[in-house]
Amino acid sequence: MPSSRGAMAATEWVDVLVGSGTLIPTGVAGVWAHGEVFARVLRGVEDLLASVLRTSEVEVRRFPPVQEVTVLHRSGYLRSFPHLTGVVSTFSGDERAHRDLLDALERGADYDGAFRLSPMALCSSACHPLYPTLRGRLPKGGRWFDVRGQVFRNEPSDDPARMVAFHQYELVYVGEPEGADRHAEMQLALALELLGGLGLSVSALPATDPFFGRTGRVLASVQLDAGAKVEVHGPTGPSSPTTALASVNRHRDHFATAFSIVTAAGAPAHSACIGFGVERIGLALLWRYGIDCSEWPASVQERLWPGVTR
Amino acid sequence: MPSSRGAMAATEWVDVLVGSGTLIPTGVAGVWAHGEVFARVLRGVEDLLASVLRTSEVEVRRFPPVQEVTVLHRSGYLRSFPHLTGVVSTFSGDERAHRDLLDALERGADYDGAFRLSPMALCSSACHPLYPTLRGRLPKGGRWFDVRGQVFRNEPSDDPARMVAFHQYELVYVGEPEGADRHAEMQLALALELLGGLGLSVSALPATDPFFGRTGRVLASVQLDAGAKVEVHGPTGPSSPTTALASVNRHRDHFATAFSIVTAAGAPAHSACIGFGVERIGLALLWRYGIDCSEWPASVQERLWPGVTR
Repeated sequence: MPSSRGAMAATEWVDVLVGSGTLIPTGVAGVWAHGEVFARVLRGVEDLLASVLRTSEVEVRRFPPVQEVTVLHRSGYLRSFPHLTGVVSTFSGDERAHRDLLDALERGADYDGAFRLSPMALCSSACHPLYPTLRGRLPKGGRWFDVRGQVFRNEPSDDPARMVAFHQYELVYVGEPEGADRHAEMQLALALELLGGLGLSVSALPATDPFFGRTGRVLASVQLDAGAKVEVHGPTGPSSPTTALASVNRHRDHFATAFSIVTAAGAPAHSACIGFGVERIGLALLWRYGIDCSEWPASVQERLWPGVTR
Repeated sequence: MPSSRGAMAATEWVDVLVGSGTLIPTGVAGVWAHGEVFARVLRGVEDLLASVLRTSEVEVRRFPPVQEVTVLHRSGYLRSFPHLTGVVSTFSGDERAHRDLLDALERGADYDGAFRLSPMALCSSACHPLYPTLRGRLPKGGRWFDVRGQVFRNEPSDDPARMVAFHQYELVYVGEPEGADRHAEMQLALALELLGGLGLSVSALPATDPFFGRTGRVLASVQLDAGAKVEVHGPTGPSSPTTALASVNRHRDHFATAFSIVTAAGAPAHSACIGFGVERIGLALLWRYGIDCSEWPASVQERLWPGVTR
């Protein structure tokens, strides 16, 4: 790490990350491959999150990077975030259609017509595919879930802290309204302690989602007034003072109503989640301690990779 | 596990997997969520593969589930496997286009026109995005890579051993032709030993890829004659006697020529890989030992989760 990190330009930091093989550009803005150090850091971060957040009551769910497109419709995601959405298109043509496709590719011509939208979309948030699986009545006290997934947001950027495809680690509660509020408060406190305990300068900030269009600006203002979203911010590089490393979201009965989930008492359930951006936490650590993780403070290494002597 | 496993119907086995929460259907054929046991088994399998296959010479790469669509064109994937391909479509319309999209969704009407193909596709094989990053001259002796990724194959099926989205673990060699041949032979022997060592009844079978169309049938026959693909088969359930758990692929100079990778001597490089289907190995273990992994033989548990007492 250069000693003048404070004065570093955003492009210099990317040069350090790429030059060291920590991140590898793939030719698409926002899509990065990870080298050994980054892979190791992200695994350490996920394991630490699991060891701190996962209690015996928490149920584990893993979702693949694709999900049913109707979930995006029913949850209102396509209404609020069409610009961030990725839908999977597939080819089901015959040999003639295939020849036309290859011909278009050779000529650099448009080949949209060869593909049709499939019933699958890319995963928008690790917890979104969870809700449709919970249809019905919950036990008293609700349920907790440890959900990890690779998610997609169509916002191409050269800033590695704003990836198009990234890992999300979520802890989700679905149950009574008070349970959801308690979950949101407790997880926010835990996140601040956990990330602060790694030596990161973090703070909680009220936040809004990047809703689409003019209606979206109204929705964002409603969200802010309701205190429905709080982000945990910290520095991840020189491109902006801080980046959201995690966010706590109170959904009220939004998902439960959309997917017919009711409490033990038969009322619409409430949900709340905390979502961690795993790559962003990794970048925050690299920015804080340097790109050689064997040189990081022993206390940080011990938290990320317990029992492993470097 | 029913004792009459031999006579079990395919649907009964799926019922056992789903009833126990090992696999969770998502509403799209071939897209399954994983419960705690399956997540634990898959992690154990990946860790075991890494501990056996990864030597100090092996470089780690992790690729996200999306990649540049041109890689699929340049590598010949769209020529050979258009039917398995998923391309990402995105929305970049204005507020009027957005209203039309929502209206079409409400009416259950076609909304293909609202989305356009993006420069991204779903990852076709864990190793495909690697080759474009290797453009140029290799060191003498070549390079080895440990690559893991979530890959997509558009072949919807109700058989959990044939998922649309799954984890692939690959060990890839790129370098001299003799190195590639040696890698393929060595990895095949290691895979048979490793999977056999878990108590799975595995065998090596010459194989072909599911090429598209009539030309594809010719390509498959050429592939078979050249011995370019060998699969390691084992039982994963009652739906078919055996399933490919891993495959060894000799690419010759196919990828190296497509992506301008040359040996230290300046000749076209050769590549070879072994790819493991992580979910399939997990299913093979569940089918062999039952869905309660705490009841598995101690020797198997110790290999998957060393040092962890259940």
